[in-house]
Amino acid sequence: LIRIGVDAMGGDYAPRSVVEGSILATLESQGKYQVVLVGDKKRIEEEFKQIEMDIPDIEIVNASQVIEMNDPPVESLKKKRDSSISVITRCLGKGEFDGIVSAGNTGAFMASTLLSSGKIEGVIRPTIGSYMPGEKNISFILDVGANSNCKPAHLLQFGIMGSIFVSTMLKRKNPKVGLLSIGEESSKGNELTIESYKLFEKSCLNFIGNIEGGDIFKGKADVIVCDGFVGNIILKFTESIIDMVKEKLKVIMGNNFITKLGILLVKPALQKMSYLYDYQEYGGVPLLGVKGTAIIGHGGSSSKAIKNAILEAYRMIRENINGKIAEKLSSYVEVESEK
Amino acid sequence: LIRIGVDAMGGDYAPRSVVEGSILATLESQGKYQVVLVGDKKRIEEEFKQIEMDIPDIEIVNASQVIEMNDPPVESLKKKRDSSISVITRCLGKGEFDGIVSAGNTGAFMASTLLSSGKIEGVIRPTIGSYMPGEKNISFILDVGANSNCKPAHLLQFGIMGSIFVSTMLKRKNPKVGLLSIGEESSKGNELTIESYKLFEKSCLNFIGNIEGGDIFKGKADVIVCDGFVGNIILKFTESIIDMVKEKLKVIMGNNFITKLGILLVKPALQKMSYLYDYQEYGGVPLLGVKGTAIIGHGGSSSKAIKNAILEAYRMIRENINGKIAEKLSSYVEVESEK
Repeated sequence: LIRIGVDAMGGDYAPRSVVEGSILATLESQGKYQVVLVGDKKRIEEEFKQIEMDIPDIEIVNASQVIEMNDPPVESLKKKRDSSISVITRCLGKGEFDGIVSAGNTGAFMASTLLSSGKIEGVIRPTIGSYMPGEKNISFILDVGANSNCKPAHLLQFGIMGSIFVSTMLKRKNPKVGLLSIGEESSKGNELTIESYKLFEKSCLNFIGNIEGGDIFKGKADVIVCDGFVGNIILKFTESIIDMVKEKLKVIMGNNFITKLGILLVKPALQKMSYLYDYQEYGGVPLLGVKGTAIIGHGGSSSKAIKNAILEAYRMIRENINGKIAEKLSSYVEVESEK
Repeated sequence: LIRIGVDAMGGDYAPRSVVEGSILATLESQGKYQVVLVGDKKRIEEEFKQIEMDIPDIEIVNASQVIEMNDPPVESLKKKRDSSISVITRCLGKGEFDGIVSAGNTGAFMASTLLSSGKIEGVIRPTIGSYMPGEKNISFILDVGANSNCKPAHLLQFGIMGSIFVSTMLKRKNPKVGLLSIGEESSKGNELTIESYKLFEKSCLNFIGNIEGGDIFKGKADVIVCDGFVGNIILKFTESIIDMVKEKLKVIMGNNFITKLGILLVKPALQKMSYLYDYQEYGGVPLLGVKGTAIIGHGGSSSKAIKNAILEAYRMIRENINGKIAEKLSSYVEVESEK
């Protein structure tokens, strides 16, 4: 049975939203995976009591401390050895969990996962990827924040891991990989992308060349590769678009009765659309390249977001993403060194 | 009299849209500036003939060649010495024009302007800035593509030039300057922004610290500073948002009659909104840091966009943006060297 640990104390609405999300995920589990909540046992049990329904079978592992959202990651990991993040990542490292989910302090969660589980052989730098909405299809962008300063070899590995993720999770054969840059020609870009282009060109990937900022939503590439600085700015910018659209619509409506009536009629559609920009719907973002499956939830995760993150972790484990990454990168390193 | 040269051959809809835009700008000039079209005299005169109205007083300077949108900038400047871009930038350098506008080959226009007019004293790297829409206010982002690889001192100068531009053109006193990064703390970011933060902190600017991708539309900063690689990706991404929204609305509407009716009623408001994302409305983007005023138009410039670009050039000249940049940077360099 697949065991998925969930950090009950992580996120702005924890433990409430995490407990609810774990219940939702368990109700959909059909006995294929077991959800284990990690955190303050008393508080979790209190949450259970307040829910007026039969609680399905969810285990609890106690952790007496909490790393807050704004705590400095490295220091707090040292100080709070019994924090939910420390405990959950330790359990993953020991093989007690197959996958873990946390909407808590991202830096601490990432660092602790890496420390406890180690990197997959052949991986230089683990990376965070994220689904990205598009006009017609969603795509996958990485890195979105794990690595602020990158070298060409890092970007190439992001491309490989992203390609495996997309072909497996989105069932797209031979996914198109694009390098995010500022011009289509191989000579355009900054020092990093110009050098990376050469590596991508020689690689086993279905490399379609540079793509520009305007191509992100067009679905030109299935996998969009960039350094974590650029990717994080793009990700957060994308999340803010729906607020901008809503705000602008409000201003433009003003006191015009016709427009107001129109908005009223369009509202359900708009609501639907806002989900497309809301990455909680995709259930958090995977940390790729570490042994063990880890999903990073958004700080503002709702119970639905937590549920989706757990389902995503389960699917990644079932599809053996990490095994595929290990296989590809080891064979790739061999090919490279043969040259 | 202020003389503004306009590249009649530049842009996807040239010379038609450029001629029309120049006429519109001249009709609004109230004798304060003179528009001069630079390009194939015969073709320009043919355009004049097809317009069924009295053409206001517009001069024409002949240029026999055209640098196409996709020509390699440096080579084509060497080959086509009588191209509209070569002629217009030469005229600017000689002081025959006070400002110039081109929606043609950006690389060639930039290089040739820099070559003919030279940098303002104290400027290390000229930069392109762009207005950026926001939930409540527009802001100004730079660099958006002139410099793919930057050093901290470059970013600081972008901040200074952007600050002068915003306080003068948008009449905002002591504009808030933010460094685009991936975390609010000074320790967050990539090597470039972490080092730049220290320079900004010591500077004369109203520096509000790092801002994140999600803050761009929130209007947290009046001036958003980043390297030209990041800025160009953001700019092009922003331009693509309205397409994405339209496309998604279409899909979501489907065959639902109520929603369709709603869309019909909201359409005028949506149209209004799309302008907010359309930087043609702001009249092109200024090249800052060179002697002489140069506005870079979007390749797809409409006649309205050309008109707005000409008005923007006029305002920049009238407000003496370049004089203010020269004054600030020379005093700044002195203060720095006194330390």
